[in-house]
Formats: sequence, C-alpha cells, structure tokens
Amino acid sequence: MRGLVYHGPNDIRCDDLADPTPPDASGLVVEVETTAICGSDLHNYHGHMGPDTGYGIGHECIGTVVEKGSEVHRFGTGDRVLVPGLVGCGACDPCRVGAVNACELGNSPVYGNNMGLGGAQAEAVAVPRADFALRRIPDGISAEQAVTLTDILPTGYYGALGAEISPGDDVVVIGAGPVGMMAILSAQLFGPARVFVIDSVPERLAMAERLGAIPCNVEEDAPEQIRAATDGLGPHSVIEAVGADATIQTALWLVRQGGAVSVVGANLNMEFPFPMGIAMARSLTFRIGICPVPQTWPTLIPLVLAGKLRPEFVFTHRMALSEGAAAYELFDSRRDGVVKILLDPRR
Amino acid sequence: MRGLVYHGPNDIRCDDLADPTPPDASGLVVEVETTAICGSDLHNYHGHMGPDTGYGIGHECIGTVVEKGSEVHRFGTGDRVLVPGLVGCGACDPCRVGAVNACELGNSPVYGNNMGLGGAQAEAVAVPRADFALRRIPDGISAEQAVTLTDILPTGYYGALGAEISPGDDVVVIGAGPVGMMAILSAQLFGPARVFVIDSVPERLAMAERLGAIPCNVEEDAPEQIRAATDGLGPHSVIEAVGADATIQTALWLVRQGGAVSVVGANLNMEFPFPMGIAMARSLTFRIGICPVPQTWPTLIPLVLAGKLRPEFVFTHRMALSEGAAAYELFDSRRDGVVKILLDPRR
Amino acid sequence: MRGLVYHGPNDIRCDDLADPTPPDASGLVVEVETTAICGSDLHNYHGHMGPDTGYGIGHECIGTVVEKGSEVHRFGTGDRVLVPGLVGCGACDPCRVGAVNACELGNSPVYGNNMGLGGAQAEAVAVPRADFALRRIPDGISAEQAVTLTDILPTGYYGALGAEISPGDDVVVIGAGPVGMMAILSAQLFGPARVFVIDSVPERLAMAERLGAIPCNVEEDAPEQIRAATDGLGPHSVIEAVGADATIQTALWLVRQGGAVSVVGANLNMEFPFPMGIAMARSLTFRIGICPVPQTWPTLIPLVLAGKLRPEFVFTHRMALSEGAAAYELFDSRRDGVVKILLDPRR
Amino acid sequence: MRGLVYHGPNDIRCDDLADPTPPDASGLVVEVETTAICGSDLHNYHGHMGPDTGYGIGHECIGTVVEKGSEVHRFGTGDRVLVPGLVGCGACDPCRVGAVNACELGNSPVYGNNMGLGGAQAEAVAVPRADFALRRIPDGISAEQAVTLTDILPTGYYGALGAEISPGDDVVVIGAGPVGMMAILSAQLFGPARVFVIDSVPERLAMAERLGAIPCNVEEDAPEQIRAATDGLGPHSVIEAVGADATIQTALWLVRQGGAVSVVGANLNMEFPFPMGIAMARSLTFRIGICPVPQTWPTLIPLVLAGKLRPEFVFTHRMALSEGAAAYELFDSRRDGVVKILLDPRR
Repeated sequence: MRGLVYHGPNDIRCDDLADPTPPDASGLVVEVETTAICGSDLHNYHGHMGPDTGYGIGHECIGTVVEKGSEVHRFGTGDRVLVPGLVGCGACDPCRVGAVNACELGNSPVYGNNMGLGGAQAEAVAVPRADFALRRIPDGISAEQAVTLTDILPTGYYGALGAEISPGDDVVVIGAGPVGMMAILSAQLFGPARVFVIDSVPERLAMAERLGAIPCNVEEDAPEQIRAATDGLGPHSVIEAVGADATIQTALWLVRQGGAVSVVGANLNMEFPFPMGIAMARSLTFRIGICPVPQTWPTLIPLVLAGKLRPEFVFTHRMALSEGAAAYELFDSRRDGVVKILLDPRR
Repeated sequence: MRGLVYHGPNDIRCDDLADPTPPDASGLVVEVETTAICGSDLHNYHGHMGPDTGYGIGHECIGTVVEKGSEVHRFGTGDRVLVPGLVGCGACDPCRVGAVNACELGNSPVYGNNMGLGGAQAEAVAVPRADFALRRIPDGISAEQAVTLTDILPTGYYGALGAEISPGDDVVVIGAGPVGMMAILSAQLFGPARVFVIDSVPERLAMAERLGAIPCNVEEDAPEQIRAATDGLGPHSVIEAVGADATIQTALWLVRQGGAVSVVGANLNMEFPFPMGIAMARSLTFRIGICPVPQTWPTLIPLVLAGKLRPEFVFTHRMALSEGAAAYELFDSRRDGVVKILLDPRR
Repeated sequence: MRGLVYHGPNDIRCDDLADPTPPDASGLVVEVETTAICGSDLHNYHGHMGPDTGYGIGHECIGTVVEKGSEVHRFGTGDRVLVPGLVGCGACDPCRVGAVNACELGNSPVYGNNMGLGGAQAEAVAVPRADFALRRIPDGISAEQAVTLTDILPTGYYGALGAEISPGDDVVVIGAGPVGMMAILSAQLFGPARVFVIDSVPERLAMAERLGAIPCNVEEDAPEQIRAATDGLGPHSVIEAVGADATIQTALWLVRQGGAVSVVGANLNMEFPFPMGIAMARSLTFRIGICPVPQTWPTLIPLVLAGKLRPEFVFTHRMALSEGAAAYELFDSRRDGVVKILLDPRR
Repeated sequence: MRGLVYHGPNDIRCDDLADPTPPDASGLVVEVETTAICGSDLHNYHGHMGPDTGYGIGHECIGTVVEKGSEVHRFGTGDRVLVPGLVGCGACDPCRVGAVNACELGNSPVYGNNMGLGGAQAEAVAVPRADFALRRIPDGISAEQAVTLTDILPTGYYGALGAEISPGDDVVVIGAGPVGMMAILSAQLFGPARVFVIDSVPERLAMAERLGAIPCNVEEDAPEQIRAATDGLGPHSVIEAVGADATIQTALWLVRQGGAVSVVGANLNMEFPFPMGIAMARSLTFRIGICPVPQTWPTLIPLVLAGKLRPEFVFTHRMALSEGAAAYELFDSRRDGVVKILLDPRR
C-alpha cells in the first residue's frame, strides 16, 4: 500500500509500504476511506519530535474493516469505523471508563509517531484491541464529519471541558486553526455569554466569526480588546489551541481571577517560564493534556447527528494522498485560506 | 395606589390599596414599571392556596426606587431594579451563597401569597433587606427582558440545572407555557443534542419549535413519539413545567435509565402516587423546588446582554393593571394564543 | 451441586441442582467460596417478588474460576474473583463507563431473581461476559471483605454518593442493617460533621455507634432528636437503607431545605404517597436506584486494602449452606444480634 | 497599642503603634485575643515581599469587638470573632458567593502586607466591611482552634479541594509545616485510601504520622518510595504546601497520569520552569491560589465542633507578642520541634 512517510524536516513523501495485518487476534485492518492532516503533524514535519525518520505519519482516519482477528467480536468486515488516534489497553481502571489518556499500562500507542502503530495517512491501518478501540460510524454522519470525530472535534471538546465553562461565562479561544475552530464549537455547548477568538489570519478570524465567535486580531492587541470588553476582568476561561510559549503566556495573563486555562495545543518545552506569582494571585486552574477521544463519542456523535455540531466546514482543501508533500507544504504555509486538508487515499 | 387583589376563586380585582413604605431601615419602595402574570398565580386564582382572601397578588415586577431606608447603601432613589419574588434573610450560610430557597431562618417571604410582602401586580412594592435582595438593571436589558429575570427565566434555568443535562443528551420539556419556554431556552445552554417539548396547544408548540425544540402534541401520544425517537430509551433529562400529577407521572415514566426528572411546575399534592418501583429500577434522580432567583443573575444577565437568551418573545399580550380581571381570565383560558401577559401599572 | 431455592413465602430449601456451565464462549463458572444473605433476599423470602417459585436465590458470592469459555481472556481457572450481583451487556455507552445499572440493552440479569442467572447461594455460579463482569480479588483482601464488595459495601457507597454529602454536612442513615452499616462507613468517606443512625434494635445501634455514628432509637422519637441536634434544620443528607414506605417518608420529612434523600432500600410500591408539597417547599433532591457494583470497585478496593474501610465486622453469624432455611429464618427474625450471615457452600 | 513591625530582612520588632479605629461606618475594631505566625510571614521576614519596611505584619488572629461603626449590624461590642486574612468588597458577584479571592474590585486587602489593613500580630486590628467579613466564634470552639480557622486550616482545605481527591485515591502532601498538617487533615475529609507526606524534619514527619499520614523522608528518596508504593503510577493528587521551586517540580513529576497538583505554598517566581511536555503527556490539572477563607467556614466550623477536625495540635510553642523577634527567629529555624507559634498580645 501507499502511505505518507516522514523523511526528515519538511520532507514528507508518499511511499510504498508493506500492507498492514491485524496486530494480533484482537486486532483488525481498516482500509482508509478518508484521512486528514492535523496541526500536531506539523510538530513532526518541523522536526520537533526527535531524530527518527522513516516512519508513517498521520493519526486521523476513518475507513472500512477488511480483515479481522479471531477474537474481534463487535466488528465484521465491511463495517465503517472511526479510528481514534490513540488506543488504550482496555483493561485498566482508567480505560474501563474510557480515560485512555490515563491508561495505567502506559499502553496507549499513537498513530503517526513511530510508536508501533504506523501512520493514518495511508491506504490502510492496523488497529489493536479493536472491540475496545473502535466505534461504528452511525448512519447520518458524513465521511468528513467522521474524520473530525477521530481527533480534532474531541480535542476541541476536551479543551472546552477542561476550561470549566459555566453558562454566562466569557471564553477566549487562542488560535483559529482546526482545533481552535472545534474549540469554539465545543465552548458553545456550555452556554457561554461570549466566545472571543484570537488569531492573526483574517480568513480564519472571518470563519470563526461565522461560528458566532468575536474575532480579535493579534495585530490589533487582541488581549487589550478582550480586557476592555470584559470590564478589565478578562475571560473566565481560556482555551489555548496553538501550543506556542507566547500564546500560553497570553492565556495565563489574560484569564480572570479564579478562572481556568485549558491548553490543547502541543507544547513540549520542559522549562516553560510559568508566571507562578501571577497564577497564585489569580487563584488559577491550569490544564494541559491529550484527549481520550473515544470517551467523547457518546457526547459528540449525537450532537453531530442532531445537527448541533457541524464540524465539516473546517475542510477547506481536498487533495490526493499522492500529493502529500504538497499538502503539508500548503498546510504549513497557511496560504490560500487553508484551514484543514482532507487526503483521499485512493488517489 | 392600585393593585390586584385576590377576592376568591376566579375573582381578581384592581383595588385601591395603602401606599407601601420601607419595611424597615434596610428596606425601600419600588415604583413598579412593569409586572406580569405568572402561571403559578393561577394556583391562587383557582383557590388552591388556601381560604384567605383580600391579599395582593403577583410576584414578578421591575421598577424604580422611590424611597429608601437609612441603611440601604447600594441603591438610591431613581435606580431601576429587578425585584425577585422571594427574599432571604441574607445572613445565614445558604443566603451568603445566594441560596435563598434554603434560607435557614425560614425567612424567605414571597410576594403575592399573603406572606407579608403584598403583591407585585401593583403600582408599588415594598422590599425588605434591599442591599441583599435587589440588583440594578444593567443598560442594554429591556424592561420586558428584565421582568422575565425576576422569575420565569431563572425558574426555567433552575429546572434545566436540576435536570443534570450534559452535552449530547436528549431532553424533554413538559409544558410549553411561559416557564416551559424558558426551560427550553435554558436547556439549550447545556449543549443537548435534542430538546423535545410536550404540550397540547398548537400555537405554543409552534412557538417552542421556533426556539429549536421538537414539538410533540399530547393528542398524538407524545411520550411514544419520544420513546421511538430515542431508540426506546427515553430522554436523559425531563424538565416538568406544568405541575399536574399526570404530567409529573409522564416525566417519571418517560425518563431514561439513570436519568433525571426536574420539576419546576408547582404541585402541592401531599400524597402524590410516586411509582417507586419504576424509579428504583431506573436509578432515578428526582428534583422539585423553588428557584433562588438572585443566585441565577450572574449567569443569566450576561446571557441576555450578549443576545444569547432572548426571553421577551414570551409576552404575547400587553394589558393595563386596571384590566387585571380580564387578564387573568384570558391567561387562564389559554385562548387567543396567549402565553404570557404584561401588565402596565400606569394604566 | 447444592443451592438454596425459593419454594414460596418463608420456604427456602437447600436442593440438589444441575451443575452450571459457561453460558457461552465469553462466560465461565465460579466455584463459590463464600456467599451471604442480603436484606433484599427477604423480599423474595416474604413472597413480594412475584408468584414464581423454584428458582435459585442469592446474589452475593466470591469464588474460584473452575471452567471458562474460549473467549474469556482476562481470567483463567484458579483465579479468585468477585462476582457482582448484576451483569451488564458491556458494550453500550453506559456499560463502557461501568454504569451497568443503566445498560441500554436492558441486559443486566441479576442473580437470585429468576432472571436466568440462577442463585449465588450455591456451590457454583455461571457468569456471562466474564471479562467485563468480574474482577480478581487482590492479595490482602479477606474472603469476608470480598463478599461485602459484591453487593452491600458498593450499595452503601452508592447511597452515600447519591446523598450529595459535602464536608461538614450532617447525615442521617435510616436503618442499621447490613446496608445501613455500609452506608455509615461510606458516608464517612465524604467528610461529614456528624452521621446519625436511626434503628430500633439496640444491638444494631450499638454496633453503629462503634463505627462513629450517633445512635437514635425509633422508640425515642429519633427524628425529633435529630431535629433538635441540628438547630431545627434537619440533616443535609439522608440515606434510607430500609425501603419501607414509613422510613422513606421519615427521610423526606427530616431532610433540610435544599438537601438530598438517597434511597438504597428496595421499595416496589407503585403508588408511594410522596409529599410533593413539602418536597417542593424544601427544594429537594431524591434518588433511588440499583448500584452499579463493578463501577465502585476502583474506589472501594483500595480503601479496603488500606484499612480505611473494614466492612467485615458486619458478619455476626457463619452457617452452612445446608442450614439455609434456618439461616433465613434467623436473619428475618433479627434475633440473637444477627446483622449478616455468611454461608459456607462446602458444608 | 503594641504590634510586630517589619523593619527589614530578619528584623521584626514589637513597636508602639497608633491604636486602630474603625475604617469607616461599616468597619470595627477587634481587640486581639490570640494571634499566630504563619509560614507565609516568612516571605516578608526573608525580605521577599519588596523593599518597603515599617509596616505591621501577621494575618491570623481572633479577638473581641471593642468599637464599631454605625452601619455594622451583625456584631456588637463584646462579640468574639474570627478575623480572616483578606477582606473582599462584599458586593461583586464572586463576593456574593464568598469567593473573596476573586473579588472583582481587586478590593481584597490583606493584613500584614502593607496593603492598608495593618498587621494582625498586634493588640488590635481594624476590620472594614465587618458584616461581610467576620464570623462569630461559636461556643465549643477553643481560641487555638479559632486561630487556625482564620488562615491555615482553610488554606489546607482549599489545597485539598483543588487537588480533586475522590474516595479511594492516593494523595501526597509535600511539606509537613503548619499548612501541610492542615492539608493532611483536610485531605482525609475526601476519603483517600492513603495520604503520604514528604518532609525532611523527623519531628514533623512523626507528627504527620500521628495524623494517619504515611511519612516519607526527603533524605530517603521520598518520591521513589511513593512511586514504588503506588505500582509506579504515582498519587492521584498532590498538595504542595511549601512553595519552593524544587517542591513544586517534585509535585509535577510525581503525580499520576490524569491527576491534579494543588499548590498552597506561596511561590512568586515569574519564570518558574514548568515541565510542559510532561504535563501534557500526563493530562494534568494544576492549581495555585489564595484561599477564600470565609467561604470555607460553613464547612470547617461544624467539623471542628463535631471533633472531626482537631487542628490545635499544630501549636507547639506559645510566646508573648513582646517576644516577636525571638519567635520569628525560632519559627524560621525549625529548631526545637517548632511547628507553629501562638503569640499572646497581652504579654
């Protein structure tokens, strides 16, 4: 099969790879129907995930079961499924309530990061512990909606959940990229009075405004605008969806006394300069983490089915898997109004 | 001054009454700008609140401070204020967090029920413990919006809160009267997948549908429609906004395994036939109560200001205080598309 | 094998029964090491669970796996396991977070109630969906402790959880039977200021007092004692562990304004006379339900291991399975200081 | 009157000061009965709170009202009261629910920090907004217990609350100083399986062990001991009660996947090196803040009254106000088994 492979910084290629097989009797193989590039793939693309090269990339895909192990009972060949980016052990106490991000066996391999599962930007993927990991795609959910359910919509929701939004609160989302857009949609599930969004790309701000957010351009001192609009108090909740040191700093300085900052952008700085004095004076709650994707499905699937969440607007570009290198280059550039790119593995 | 007085079942009159004075140094007098008839006033109108007659009726009003005691510090004459239907002591632990419905002194007199505070359907009302009880009406909130903030919007919100709605849940609101309409608006603050509404009046169902609810007519076996739409499971949450024995029964039988029923309709039956066996088998949460109105203001006022809650649609009729008798008759009849009636105390 | 069988009101016999076999490939058979009689078995014993007779009784046991289906992966023969009283489907959304009492397939058969699973007061039991249902007994937990973990300790904990106890609250437990005792232990996990217990059996009240509860004898107007001790306000939370109409009424009348009543006693009255007027005036939360036993194990097992919960004191009598008839008679009589009876299936 | 004054690093003196007067009509004066030195006073003592000198120090005291403004209604001269360390405006939304640490007016002056309120280590203190700020000391609470209720016990409780402890969890308290001791007591209100405590002073560890905590000496690789005791997973919750960079780092590295770190030690580092990558991989919750003391009283006072919290053991030394300099020197040294020092303002 073909799949995108990381060959080094700014070097993604569509290579011929060995066909995947079920990892063991509890696993199966999914033929990928649609896959997408995620903002966090850019950490690999930029060479920030370590020196290893030659591994399959990508962690967002849906598809159809084409082969299964003897101990897979809940799925059969032909079933269309959501493939989550990470897979827990399924047996420990956290996994038993769906908290795969707290899996006690440290047994949560992630697609696309050289952790043994291969990449999801490919014609097929292997899935271990399939009965535990997968979920059938219900009728009424489109392929594009389904892809968002494998990572960015759950992640945006997880960010909103961690931000402790109560009805009537003011919320700021930092970053109007794909996850930021999902964070805006998700924040609105908690009844905020206002959702402000900070970004520097006018097209993205305009798209966020169509979702009901109040756009604030970084170029026009967005934090000051928000402070003024909130009587100098700042927002109750900030969802950070970029992951840069500077934007996390903005979140920490902007949030209101007693408020919460929830980071879903990826940041690997082991010496992030945290303003502890200000955090203490503000009585702050700070969260950062990895979303336990399948745990959010009972919440998000009904909302997509009911038309309350319409995440598919986020796909601005559709390209072929064979165009992977160009797709990464475009996505990284933020040119041409790109927000998120779907890849068709059949092309 | 003039005010509506309960003279017996189906007998409300606009009488001349003594002008109110501040109850004590911590109290003040509000000249009423707008008042409204509440569904719970019909309990009085129908003679269900006991044999006493001759007391002022009504508990929803806004107005302007015209006289104040020497120990009122937060308000001055000329201030426009929200007057909540009940007033706690302000000093006990529950009152200190706004839970006036749990006031330990049992010191929560209610307007319009012969409990010493007079009625709010009048030209003026006296307010005790004003610094604790009142809130200034912020710029940007209309008089009609403000009246809903004195009772029905908080009560609908309280019902939604008690129903333990999580994002993605299915919710049923029983009763598309004024409080039911506010419950629909409020339920939507918690991110439900769907809100169903049950009523028998087509105009009310149509109005509820414009709010985004799915209308279900009692005449067409509404519970069965909802059961079918929820794969036989029923809704996660039911908000009962009628208060009749039959509708509370419907709520208890309709709700899903592990779900919650929240009653904001008034029911005084001291031997309500509760289906305990079914409640046990369903692992049910059941709530009924009186809303601590002021505690909801920090939540609801920003939502009205931001345009996220637009409760004023509920007023279908505007009449003069002097037409009180006719207004009650009309409201009770549910004729002419009436949902809620504003009364102008200057006429 | 031998097992206790319900032959009609007050007629339990130890019969010879067919040996159980694994229900299907995902199931297994447990040889019972210890079993116990539960207060809710008395509903069967008294003939309140319907006219059927001839079914195995009992739903509390632990034991050793002696035979397993081909699709059981987490357990092998020789493993000592906790057997929960009810078993969910394991696949629906509620089961995926352990809420087997809300299983969407209605697929939660219960031992000992003629629902297909047989009775646990026997030499062996069959267990369906074993990987999902069972849990290994950790080293350091005694057999007697383990039996309490299959029903009464989780049920007492579930009652305490539903009672919404916050640190500093006053709590009342009604009924110092086995589940009531576990409710006292469990309530203390939530930091209450005081736990009162109401019963009429002096030995049980004395045992409850040794757990740190304040004993209140029904014969000496227990509700009035509690009201006086709480400045007339009543307790914040009441856990009802009897299930009689009268004791649930006591709970509803006793609880404080804004408080919660949590019923873990079994009550099947389909027209329980619920004092709705008082519940409304009090702004009450009311819960009744069946405990999702396995969901509580990650909480309770560490507490037993750490010595923070020592539930085994509840066993006052140890008898042979062959003495089942006498054991039921004794337990029902409340004579001889009996609180809970262990049955040894090897005798 | 006499009071302790900060004259520069390691230079505290008992000076003659002007007698305080009620700050305005809503304020009053409390004659101090007992006061105490707090660990956070050492930040001043060490010169870390800025260059200003000559201000009164201390923020923990109880006493008797000796003079009051005309608008104080809830207290009279002769009332014994708890004086909280910080005082909110009493009128904003956060203050209306007791969250004085989120006071919107930024109007929360703190005793002993040169913010206008003077110091509590004195013969008398002035209290603004007394009706809002103060609470009468109930009968049955000793003076020593009462002093702990003005700061350290609420702060320990606030730390435990922020650590999101659920029944059955493992908890670590870092630092067995006065606030750490209170955090141990408070953590136990949430039903943990085990509470570990880390410190380097053997007497403090022994005292913590008597409270039920498991002592871990820093000198013997405490984190490794705890990791081993928790199957390599670490504790669910860590309460940091020191405030040093190193101990906050320990907390962040020690906590379990999905866990929470709650800091009540004071740390003013504006570039604290936060290990963001590890926090992200662990899906961490982090809290740091100032306790809203009066909000905790409805919780803590009943627990002290019921004997469930016995905080007074923490006072190892009793000295005269006139010995203030020596008291600070001793407290700072951690010599002689000192944990916390009471000061008698009459001597």
